[in-house]
Amino acid sequence: MKKLVCYHKGKMMSVDEAGVSVNDLGVQRGYGIFDFLRVSGSVPLFLEDHLDRFFHSASEMHLPVEESRQEIREVIFSLIRENNLKSSGIRLILTGGDSPDGYQIIRPGLVIVQLGIQSPPDTIIEPGIRLLSYPFQRQLPQVKTTDYLMAIWLQPWLKKSGGDDILYYNQGMATECPRSNFFILTKNQVLATPARDMLKGITRKQVIRLAQALGIVVEERAISLDEINTAREMFITSSTRRIVPVRKLDDMIFEHHPQDSVTGKLWRAFYTQEMDLVSMG
Amino acid sequence: MKKLVCYHKGKMMSVDEAGVSVNDLGVQRGYGIFDFLRVSGSVPLFLEDHLDRFFHSASEMHLPVEESRQEIREVIFSLIRENNLKSSGIRLILTGGDSPDGYQIIRPGLVIVQLGIQSPPDTIIEPGIRLLSYPFQRQLPQVKTTDYLMAIWLQPWLKKSGGDDILYYNQGMATECPRSNFFILTKNQVLATPARDMLKGITRKQVIRLAQALGIVVEERAISLDEINTAREMFITSSTRRIVPVRKLDDMIFEHHPQDSVTGKLWRAFYTQEMDLVSMG
Repeated sequence: MKKLVCYHKGKMMSVDEAGVSVNDLGVQRGYGIFDFLRVSGSVPLFLEDHLDRFFHSASEMHLPVEESRQEIREVIFSLIRENNLKSSGIRLILTGGDSPDGYQIIRPGLVIVQLGIQSPPDTIIEPGIRLLSYPFQRQLPQVKTTDYLMAIWLQPWLKKSGGDDILYYNQGMATECPRSNFFILTKNQVLATPARDMLKGITRKQVIRLAQALGIVVEERAISLDEINTAREMFITSSTRRIVPVRKLDDMIFEHHPQDSVTGKLWRAFYTQEMDLVSMG
Repeated sequence: MKKLVCYHKGKMMSVDEAGVSVNDLGVQRGYGIFDFLRVSGSVPLFLEDHLDRFFHSASEMHLPVEESRQEIREVIFSLIRENNLKSSGIRLILTGGDSPDGYQIIRPGLVIVQLGIQSPPDTIIEPGIRLLSYPFQRQLPQVKTTDYLMAIWLQPWLKKSGGDDILYYNQGMATECPRSNFFILTKNQVLATPARDMLKGITRKQVIRLAQALGIVVEERAISLDEINTAREMFITSSTRRIVPVRKLDDMIFEHHPQDSVTGKLWRAFYTQEMDLVSMG
């Protein structure tokens, strides 16, 4: 098997050669940020949105980036060319870097890897996934940090409890899934999604835009678990999975049929847009 | 300069050669635990306590350890021999390991590094340090995870605000400093320290034992910021710094003189014990 190429410390190299120092704050203190984008055809989807968020996360975490935005773009296109993967994702990781005292940030290090991932299906997932709610508030939720401690720690519980994914809530308000945003269609046909205490996803942003273009009223605001109880539809959004209907949250079942619902309408709009972006290449 | 030797993936190697894979969950998801102990003379202080905690943290985080306790002990003694550092610390880091999907734990990886650190001074620090309180609750606080996101993120604020260290509190209750536990001597001459929502330090455990041996009443219980306001003395404990008096928390000043206080008495008991351990070496 051909070894994948990645970018590390200013150079392109085989993934096997790229090692993060054991004294890196990313390893020692979990201090780092990242971004992840899907490559469809050979198009890095919503690249500029992801770069915006990447530089925002870096700046929020006091992590200077040595590479310019243009240099990062070029690395990404060169990875796509060299690795020539059928279906993939690009992950940018910026860690705190080597630290003499294991605490001070001196010189952060950027790693860009491409990895083969399964392409999301060409039809909407039916009947949808099962979410389990869990009381948790991420620290620095507006930043895409590498902190997934709770999400990974909860995996055995999730499996045992028969859920597909987790919905975090805090003081009765639902915020986000560990790797996705969520939307509900309220009983009054409003599309609602949280605006605070969560990470603003790129797919979330696109879905809001597409919904508005379709004439759907969108509200970005706090959503309680109680309100979800009365919702008509619920779905989650993420770069890897596009739009995925939720059929169950805890014991609450959503009765809509994904195809015929607003969820389905948004899925088709999103999918069509992606195909357009890919064909424009 | 002689390169330090470390342990990584079952082998001893130069620290420069040891690289954690960019696909390791420790790098990608901040998923890892660690422990840190100080070496005094050539004695790894309270080694068995640290190993107890290390294995406890690993188990809490669903991270199997391939090395036996005895193998880890041998690695530590061999690092101390080979690196021959005057004053040092040993850090054990267990990360989630390479993961095909960046989420599942397959095979965790252990790194053991030794690093030169400044020896804590041979007299109690006077007049003590300044703490600033900050509202925060660590996730999974009873486990020594590598999650120091908030602690490092707060460093610029701490520096700007003229503090030496941070005291986390949650709902009015003080819990811990990012890398230390804290104690107060109450107005009734009771030595009190939190018992929940924090990490139980090894130095904390020793201080409790020494205090009891000195006939001081010790209480492990919740401590509010209000109660600290009325305390006679306050100090923090950590493996790297032993016992350090607090002279100021926010705007509150502790008037005692470290030498003549209960803090001083405990410092001397702790220091004497350390010297005994080293001479028995």
